[in-house]
Amino acid sequence: MTSPDATPGRGESLANPQWGGRFAEGPSAIMRAINASIGFDRKLWRQDIRGSLAHAAMLRHVGILSAEDEAAIRRGLEDIARGIEAGDFPWDEGLEDVHMNIEARLTEAIGEAGKRLHTARSRNDQVALDLRLWVRDAIDGLAGQVEAVMRALVARAEEHAATVMPGFTHLQPAQPVTLGHHLLAYVEMLARDRGRFRDCRARLDECPLGAAALAGTSFPIDRHMTAAALGFAGGPMRNSLDAVAARDFAAEFLFACAMCATHLSRFAEEVVLWTNPYFGFVRLSDAFTTGSSIMPQKRNPDAAELVRGKTGRITGALVGLLTVLKGLALAYFKDLQEDKEGVFDAAENLALCLAAVEGMVRDMRPDAARLAQAAGAGFSTATDLADWLVRALRMPFRDAHHVTGRLVAMAEAKGCDLAGLSLAEMRSVEPRITDDVFSVLTVAASVASRTSYGGTAPANVARMAAEWKERLA
Amino acid sequence: MTSPDATPGRGESLANPQWGGRFAEGPSAIMRAINASIGFDRKLWRQDIRGSLAHAAMLRHVGILSAEDEAAIRRGLEDIARGIEAGDFPWDEGLEDVHMNIEARLTEAIGEAGKRLHTARSRNDQVALDLRLWVRDAIDGLAGQVEAVMRALVARAEEHAATVMPGFTHLQPAQPVTLGHHLLAYVEMLARDRGRFRDCRARLDECPLGAAALAGTSFPIDRHMTAAALGFAGGPMRNSLDAVAARDFAAEFLFACAMCATHLSRFAEEVVLWTNPYFGFVRLSDAFTTGSSIMPQKRNPDAAELVRGKTGRITGALVGLLTVLKGLALAYFKDLQEDKEGVFDAAENLALCLAAVEGMVRDMRPDAARLAQAAGAGFSTATDLADWLVRALRMPFRDAHHVTGRLVAMAEAKGCDLAGLSLAEMRSVEPRITDDVFSVLTVAASVASRTSYGGTAPANVARMAAEWKERLA
Amino acid sequence: MTSPDATPGRGESLANPQWGGRFAEGPSAIMRAINASIGFDRKLWRQDIRGSLAHAAMLRHVGILSAEDEAAIRRGLEDIARGIEAGDFPWDEGLEDVHMNIEARLTEAIGEAGKRLHTARSRNDQVALDLRLWVRDAIDGLAGQVEAVMRALVARAEEHAATVMPGFTHLQPAQPVTLGHHLLAYVEMLARDRGRFRDCRARLDECPLGAAALAGTSFPIDRHMTAAALGFAGGPMRNSLDAVAARDFAAEFLFACAMCATHLSRFAEEVVLWTNPYFGFVRLSDAFTTGSSIMPQKRNPDAAELVRGKTGRITGALVGLLTVLKGLALAYFKDLQEDKEGVFDAAENLALCLAAVEGMVRDMRPDAARLAQAAGAGFSTATDLADWLVRALRMPFRDAHHVTGRLVAMAEAKGCDLAGLSLAEMRSVEPRITDDVFSVLTVAASVASRTSYGGTAPANVARMAAEWKERLA
Amino acid sequence: MTSPDATPGRGESLANPQWGGRFAEGPSAIMRAINASIGFDRKLWRQDIRGSLAHAAMLRHVGILSAEDEAAIRRGLEDIARGIEAGDFPWDEGLEDVHMNIEARLTEAIGEAGKRLHTARSRNDQVALDLRLWVRDAIDGLAGQVEAVMRALVARAEEHAATVMPGFTHLQPAQPVTLGHHLLAYVEMLARDRGRFRDCRARLDECPLGAAALAGTSFPIDRHMTAAALGFAGGPMRNSLDAVAARDFAAEFLFACAMCATHLSRFAEEVVLWTNPYFGFVRLSDAFTTGSSIMPQKRNPDAAELVRGKTGRITGALVGLLTVLKGLALAYFKDLQEDKEGVFDAAENLALCLAAVEGMVRDMRPDAARLAQAAGAGFSTATDLADWLVRALRMPFRDAHHVTGRLVAMAEAKGCDLAGLSLAEMRSVEPRITDDVFSVLTVAASVASRTSYGGTAPANVARMAAEWKERLA
Repeated sequence: MTSPDATPGRGESLANPQWGGRFAEGPSAIMRAINASIGFDRKLWRQDIRGSLAHAAMLRHVGILSAEDEAAIRRGLEDIARGIEAGDFPWDEGLEDVHMNIEARLTEAIGEAGKRLHTARSRNDQVALDLRLWVRDAIDGLAGQVEAVMRALVARAEEHAATVMPGFTHLQPAQPVTLGHHLLAYVEMLARDRGRFRDCRARLDECPLGAAALAGTSFPIDRHMTAAALGFAGGPMRNSLDAVAARDFAAEFLFACAMCATHLSRFAEEVVLWTNPYFGFVRLSDAFTTGSSIMPQKRNPDAAELVRGKTGRITGALVGLLTVLKGLALAYFKDLQEDKEGVFDAAENLALCLAAVEGMVRDMRPDAARLAQAAGAGFSTATDLADWLVRALRMPFRDAHHVTGRLVAMAEAKGCDLAGLSLAEMRSVEPRITDDVFSVLTVAASVASRTSYGGTAPANVARMAAEWKERLA
Repeated sequence: MTSPDATPGRGESLANPQWGGRFAEGPSAIMRAINASIGFDRKLWRQDIRGSLAHAAMLRHVGILSAEDEAAIRRGLEDIARGIEAGDFPWDEGLEDVHMNIEARLTEAIGEAGKRLHTARSRNDQVALDLRLWVRDAIDGLAGQVEAVMRALVARAEEHAATVMPGFTHLQPAQPVTLGHHLLAYVEMLARDRGRFRDCRARLDECPLGAAALAGTSFPIDRHMTAAALGFAGGPMRNSLDAVAARDFAAEFLFACAMCATHLSRFAEEVVLWTNPYFGFVRLSDAFTTGSSIMPQKRNPDAAELVRGKTGRITGALVGLLTVLKGLALAYFKDLQEDKEGVFDAAENLALCLAAVEGMVRDMRPDAARLAQAAGAGFSTATDLADWLVRALRMPFRDAHHVTGRLVAMAEAKGCDLAGLSLAEMRSVEPRITDDVFSVLTVAASVASRTSYGGTAPANVARMAAEWKERLA
Repeated sequence: MTSPDATPGRGESLANPQWGGRFAEGPSAIMRAINASIGFDRKLWRQDIRGSLAHAAMLRHVGILSAEDEAAIRRGLEDIARGIEAGDFPWDEGLEDVHMNIEARLTEAIGEAGKRLHTARSRNDQVALDLRLWVRDAIDGLAGQVEAVMRALVARAEEHAATVMPGFTHLQPAQPVTLGHHLLAYVEMLARDRGRFRDCRARLDECPLGAAALAGTSFPIDRHMTAAALGFAGGPMRNSLDAVAARDFAAEFLFACAMCATHLSRFAEEVVLWTNPYFGFVRLSDAFTTGSSIMPQKRNPDAAELVRGKTGRITGALVGLLTVLKGLALAYFKDLQEDKEGVFDAAENLALCLAAVEGMVRDMRPDAARLAQAAGAGFSTATDLADWLVRALRMPFRDAHHVTGRLVAMAEAKGCDLAGLSLAEMRSVEPRITDDVFSVLTVAASVASRTSYGGTAPANVARMAAEWKERLA
Repeated sequence: MTSPDATPGRGESLANPQWGGRFAEGPSAIMRAINASIGFDRKLWRQDIRGSLAHAAMLRHVGILSAEDEAAIRRGLEDIARGIEAGDFPWDEGLEDVHMNIEARLTEAIGEAGKRLHTARSRNDQVALDLRLWVRDAIDGLAGQVEAVMRALVARAEEHAATVMPGFTHLQPAQPVTLGHHLLAYVEMLARDRGRFRDCRARLDECPLGAAALAGTSFPIDRHMTAAALGFAGGPMRNSLDAVAARDFAAEFLFACAMCATHLSRFAEEVVLWTNPYFGFVRLSDAFTTGSSIMPQKRNPDAAELVRGKTGRITGALVGLLTVLKGLALAYFKDLQEDKEGVFDAAENLALCLAAVEGMVRDMRPDAARLAQAAGAGFSTATDLADWLVRALRMPFRDAHHVTGRLVAMAEAKGCDLAGLSLAEMRSVEPRITDDVFSVLTVAASVASRTSYGGTAPANVARMAAEWKERLA
């Protein structure tokens, strides 16, 4: 590349090589450097070959290719695929992109027939097809990983359906919840992320092949056949200009990735907080922390931090593609070549994040005693007291809040928690209070009472975990 | 506000008022200024009242509110709604937000019963509900507008199914297409945009009400009842922490807006190009252009430029919300108050853009003669010639390209178009060419031949327009 | 507006008004709605009038305006300014923007002379001037606020130059630092933010007025005179096309705002953490927290959360403007009208954030005892021990780390801190250790020893605070 | 990687390899994959070695290292540098990053002394140093390239100081300008971009080395010495926490890149427009266009399109880093590892864009005849006529506009341009018009008259080009 790191091997080693030195040989070097995509679009080789196989079979079916030519093409492409897998394919930057590399090699191998393969198609519909197939494959992989994380969360939620912990608002302890309930909140988020991937997949599941350069073709091709062969449930795309110009499928994919990464960043933030010693809520093993050779007690939650940080590049990739598309006329422009690297990078980094989160979920060991102690601190059952006043004394909600506030202040002054106040003390504030009030002041009673649908009561949580388990089975 | 424009009315008029002068009175003024949301969340008043009515009816149903109290609340809220519509509701910044303004007013009006309304809910689930309802309403409005644009495009496409124009790649004329075909490409994009809005709507169609502060409640509420009353097809949300912490529904909405705006920006760019005098493809009336008092022939396509430019703020709103959510722990944080203004602004600006695009589509008058002339320029049927060579002579595609290139060069040298070459001239390059070749060299023949599914052949276009018309009826 | 909240006053109150109903009257209503900027550009009235006064004075100077006309214009504009400040200027949406509103009013008031004001200028250079002046004013205000925050931080740093606290990496306590040192880190960040504002100001300090529509003018105007009158140190802009087309000054301003907001978000995150009860590092008064009527001990750091959240909209505004400018040809396009609202919103919200942060810095009460206790926990002086081994025993650094690790493990097993190990115990790991080692194992010794330039030693911190105080005086 | 393209070599070639299959071996594989940075941070090797050499020399100077050890380290590092340049350095992913790879190799090579190198520093300050040095180097390279583009533009501007062309607003021809003037507008933009790079460089020119992990060190290091040795004009950073936590220097660099790329995207858009045949303003050679094997007349401006498109990824990188930094507490977090790839990618792609733009500027051949013809079309001198009315008849500007409008309408009706109207015809609209008016109605007269500072008059343009030439010499 043209950067300071780029041209090792000559001259004084630590001085930077001439920035831009690579372009010294002139315009052709610049053009080659900016134009060639083979450095990254070779990732599409599987998709490119699948597309060509389907195209050739269709061309034969409609009589454009002879059976012999099609057979030669098929065998040639299969050979090429084996070669690429084996790592001995001679990628050539001079041939610019993955399509030309494969086609040139094919023609080299099988002669004349190779020159017939590109009939009734264009690189415009070819690359639109390849990226679409790649994204569809990536969605299948990522959606599977999302489900794996969900399953891991559900398993831990089931295990900790009754493990109490503080529920926070504003990072201030507010009311007790259960750890299982907290983990299931992420299952809900991820379920929506999965839904976004699925919707994106369903929407992109249309085949651009056969749009040719931009206008369709006069050859009697059968686009339904290629669409079916390539597994496009939505059949062929209905408009050839749209087929070569559209990249909203990639942008939607990037949004689905960015949203999922953002959800993972929220979880990662919590892992960072929970493993902080003042929280001390969970412990991660060495598998997901790094130590310090000097402070063996230190466990840095590096994996969580990286998951949190990687949100940036994924959101950046989304912004990048929206910027590319802004104000771009129809149909194909070379600007669209800038669609790929962001998609590849986002997919690969999200895959890493999902793997790391799944691992951390399975790995984390909650400190139940610490969680229980924290759950009870800070007058966390004050809401339960207020609700009791409403329920038992039919006090208006706003008045009940006022009374509770006075009782908490009294407990604070006395240095005890709410259950530490005597009935007499309570009655000095509100004479109608009865002994029954003490039944709602414990953490256990508090969480057990939150039986409203979606509430944190352990029975609710266990039921919900079981439902998710079944749904994900 | 704290900006230079902010505190008129004292002192020297053109010197800027003291920046930050508003905060001179100290911390309380700062806190009020940063904390109060009533300046923008009052937009949620309809949703807030609808939510409260449903909540009160449910509280009565389960016996938490008496019939009398519920009736008083209902009448009180209806009065308030009328007052707000009539513009005489006394919004009070001191009451911070729309929820407190309405509740305080209600209690003022109906007394004790008003203080009972907030039982078994919290501002955390209340605001989550209100924004969700607002977004759902906005989606219904925007999806309707998207369809209106689609209908306008389809009508023009039908009218111009056979109107030829140049098809571009790289903004270079490549092959002839029809105007109808070009317009239908946008119908496809907008159909996907509509799909994204619909998917977003379906995914957010779950009710957070009853999640209370974060943990659910011990009151025997019926969340299915409120969910049904508010029209949430998905029922109540399954996890109370998620219910108050989730804003992915808003981010997904913003992405759907940004993607749609980006599509509109592509159309707007084309309007700007097409109304440029060198293109001269279409003419817009005064309704969507601004003139110059000095150059009456000048028609600036301001509306199109604004549509193109507004993509920026909508994409910006998406980035803004993703930034807010990045790394935010559970459950509720005040950061989430920053979710609203971007959503409002994006929805309102997209509504403007859609209205403007619909108007321009209906308004534009294509210059068919100019389009036809442009469609024929630049050897635009060279691909047709090459395809003829493949089809008629069974020449391999790559060889046919080579021959065509030589013929185009010959025509260029001769200063004619391809049809201007004699058969003899053509045969000097490729002896097997026959008279039949001339049948594919006209623009009309070219577009007519693109009969592959999704191709630009007028019959295809007419059929596709008819299908869309039916679908959108 | 066109949104659900938009058209109160008719029909059933809680059903949403017809989305887009506002446009029922047709294209002219749409065009007016999308085109008119008076709803937001009126913020520029001071700048617009300042520009017109300078322009008129120059026109008179070069003989284009008579002295009488110029005097009439001056008086007319001053009247208008007074009217606007007094709040009784009749803004008219039909007149589209702030420029036409003021000019029309002027002509109405002073007749013929008003029609001469616009000689040798255009709205293109006029609006470029107005926004430039507004941004310059905003920078002055914001830079002043940044300094106020710096001063507040320096004051607290001076006070807490020796107050120990844990220094974190990965949110794990790593080594003791002082609170003063920690606060001065933000002073450094803000100093760079201030520098960015200053650089931006210096770069934009050139006058576009006189570029006219795009090409300059044939009138014998004196652009140096207007530039000087309006305080542009850089004189008139050198290229008329650039003068009307450039908005990088606004984008750079938005970046400076976004970077500063991002720094404030880091501080805000720390406030949220530090006020969390498990940290318990600082306490904020009611001025910057909100309580709960039910849990009086709860202090939600709302102001900090809002500061953190507002980063989103400011970054969003930056993305918005970069998106607007991407791929925009020269010179003026109506897209550029989309430059203003993001700039206004970012400036105003950053002003709020700076005010809130300054307030919180002044308000926060550190809990020195808690900080000291936390500073000593977690073997936080292990690095000091390792450094002692290197220094006293000339052990290679990597070996010293290894020995320290074994000693920490021993202390952990014994349940004491490092100073709790006996010399004998230490010597069982490394026989050359002497009594002197205990001198480095206390928190006080640790921070005192960090005397390298920029290190956390209290003397360093005090000196640095004093330097900053002087610099900011 | 974990993507579909990632694990070739086994199984059925065209089925995708198992997504995430790479992680099958468990947590350690995941952690290695997400944590290791050696895949990209090896780009920092030159900077890392320069930093270590300076650090070692300083350690010797202050007596921490012996002369022998320092000499061994120096020779060892120089050997390593040679090895890396020669391409035979054994990079080891197990060693995680560039720092550990080099240090481990050094210790392997020189023994004990190698273990002493890391005394009084930490990877936290080391990586902050390395990236800062890399960015500083990149700025030097990019600023040089920006100047090269400026020089190319100035050379062409000088050549075309008097070549007339249409000046556009709203992409509608508005007034004639000269091509030289238009090109100089980009010189102005790039000059500000260069200024932003310079300001960024000056602000980041402070040395973080010696901040150690976060708190400074107790070793008697001399940070001024290392700062000077590494060429940091601003000396050592003043706060150790800031030194390891700050990345605003990288974000500012990314903004400077994004702004510059956005300017280049405006130029690229114009190249795409100008090479469109309806514009036909300039022609690019094969060096910067790609042809079509079938349409030899087609010259696709691929380089310009790619320049325009690459704005996306650069803006995306900026958003990515701001997202990473949002809400990140102090001091070091592993999230910061996500700072590098975006910086590398943005710098390298901007370098490509600048090289391509410089090449296109030098390459483009304007069609002077076409430009002149276009410059005269569309009543482009109407403003000149209006200005003449103001100047010669002292008509108020707004009235002059009105009269001009009527004359243009008359010419339009007559089918001529303004100079085609007879004096009598003109006088029928405004009787005071004299023969002198014809002197302003030609394109040549129009541009010649724009002599206001910064105006498009050829003499102005030539002078400005000369000034820039000198400044850039």
